[in-house]
Amino acid sequence: MHNITRVALVGGTHGNELSGIYLLKKWEKTSQFTRWPQLELTQTIANPRACEHSVRYMETDLNREFALEDLQNDRLVGYEQLLAKKLNQQFGPRGRSPVELMIDLHNTTSNMGACLMLLRKDAFNIGMAAYVKDRMPEAVIYFQDNLPEERNRFLISVAQQGVTVEVGPQPNSVLQQETLELMETMTGHILDYVVLYNRGELASLPGEFEAFQYTEDLVLPTDEQGQRLAMVSKRLERRDFHPVEPGEVIMETFDGVPICWEGDYTAYPLFINEAAYHRSHSAMSMSQRIVLRCADYF
Amino acid sequence: MHNITRVALVGGTHGNELSGIYLLKKWEKTSQFTRWPQLELTQTIANPRACEHSVRYMETDLNREFALEDLQNDRLVGYEQLLAKKLNQQFGPRGRSPVELMIDLHNTTSNMGACLMLLRKDAFNIGMAAYVKDRMPEAVIYFQDNLPEERNRFLISVAQQGVTVEVGPQPNSVLQQETLELMETMTGHILDYVVLYNRGELASLPGEFEAFQYTEDLVLPTDEQGQRLAMVSKRLERRDFHPVEPGEVIMETFDGVPICWEGDYTAYPLFINEAAYHRSHSAMSMSQRIVLRCADYF
Repeated sequence: MHNITRVALVGGTHGNELSGIYLLKKWEKTSQFTRWPQLELTQTIANPRACEHSVRYMETDLNREFALEDLQNDRLVGYEQLLAKKLNQQFGPRGRSPVELMIDLHNTTSNMGACLMLLRKDAFNIGMAAYVKDRMPEAVIYFQDNLPEERNRFLISVAQQGVTVEVGPQPNSVLQQETLELMETMTGHILDYVVLYNRGELASLPGEFEAFQYTEDLVLPTDEQGQRLAMVSKRLERRDFHPVEPGEVIMETFDGVPICWEGDYTAYPLFINEAAYHRSHSAMSMSQRIVLRCADYF
Repeated sequence: MHNITRVALVGGTHGNELSGIYLLKKWEKTSQFTRWPQLELTQTIANPRACEHSVRYMETDLNREFALEDLQNDRLVGYEQLLAKKLNQQFGPRGRSPVELMIDLHNTTSNMGACLMLLRKDAFNIGMAAYVKDRMPEAVIYFQDNLPEERNRFLISVAQQGVTVEVGPQPNSVLQQETLELMETMTGHILDYVVLYNRGELASLPGEFEAFQYTEDLVLPTDEQGQRLAMVSKRLERRDFHPVEPGEVIMETFDGVPICWEGDYTAYPLFINEAAYHRSHSAMSMSQRIVLRCADYF
């Protein structure tokens, strides 16, 4: 277990998610970056051109461009593909990065509250989740450490450790004060935790905490022309991380036929009706509720 | 007072406002267009290319391209400028249109509920407002008949009469069942009213009703580089059409300084934090509450 000193704080990976962009501006203006003198904290806007146009991306989703083979593929010269290579040079290279932690700041149009998204269940991540959940009980802890490696093409994969702060609901290209404050609070707790972690002061963590574990993605049915045949049921509206039992209605066709949850487990949906997944007709992701004991990881 | 027979129902004027686009699809699929056999009802997607890309517009806002002098200016050949000329040919020409009523279906990211936006206070519009408000008490009636003529560059200005159905809150590129149902209900009432109006059966309307009248627009303060210095206060979040008294906090700078409402009247804000007005740093529009008596207009 080595110290986490170099921490990169990133906003604007998606240019229409304004909380991260404005949190960095706000912390710059109010000198908040000096609150953690023990850390080498840097701040970066990942996709300034997408921010300028207030769009998610110019050509392709930057946050899907960090697969190792893509970073090494010289024929990939799209705008975000080039930007990924530049960011990999700046923060990486992936696999040998000097940056010990990257915190990537995102918004969602779904009602996910303040969600801490984690890619690993190791002592550092488990401790962070326990600490954040303890200081901020309304936070949602979400593990996607079971994603297949080929789907981990996220910007944070460049650094040694990476976490995503995902706050919503907030429409794209909108800045809401409450959502900004949720992000600010969560990010502050993460940085406080890193200082505690470096000091080895993990005894103060709670014994166990609630979290959610990714299981699968659900898409809306489409016809042969790729046109949607159904929409997410209003029963699920704004109910991210609320339980859905097998057999419950989750979608409805435009002519009024209900579509039920066919899984054999109590699911906790998230990214319900997320705008960015409009093209792929994604309806929601599913997760299961889990309880994690810190003692199992230290 | 002549009959309103030719009615054009338009969705997709903004390509990322999904309720109108999907309402037309739904009505097509469920043969709802035949519910009003007395009317010659047509349906159109105004900006199919913007819909395909799920963006508000390709180059410029189509719903600001219908000024008479712009429609007649052959040098304006941007994508939406050309599209406006084609729509003016299809539905107009503006000033001599055979289309007696155009209903334009929009979404807003603001919490405006189901809002009927009207450009005139004549018997036809007053009657429509009274009828809709009576059948759908949660509807908000909003008059912007005091907009200067040069700002009426809307698509609906092409037809003899035009109304906008503006439903929210819904993020761009998202389809929510509840929002779609609000739009469906309001549009149905409008068409029912047109049939009633043609029959001269206006005696059944309520004597008076509440509405809101546009007064002015408020923008966020910016620095010399055009960067925002403040955000809308969270006190106003989701509180479209709730009263704001003179002196109340309506914005806050990023370093925590409150900015108060400086008007000398009780204002009812709308389009609070609307995503589409991000570039112009619009914070909200202001309106005043009014009560209208039908008898004054018939």
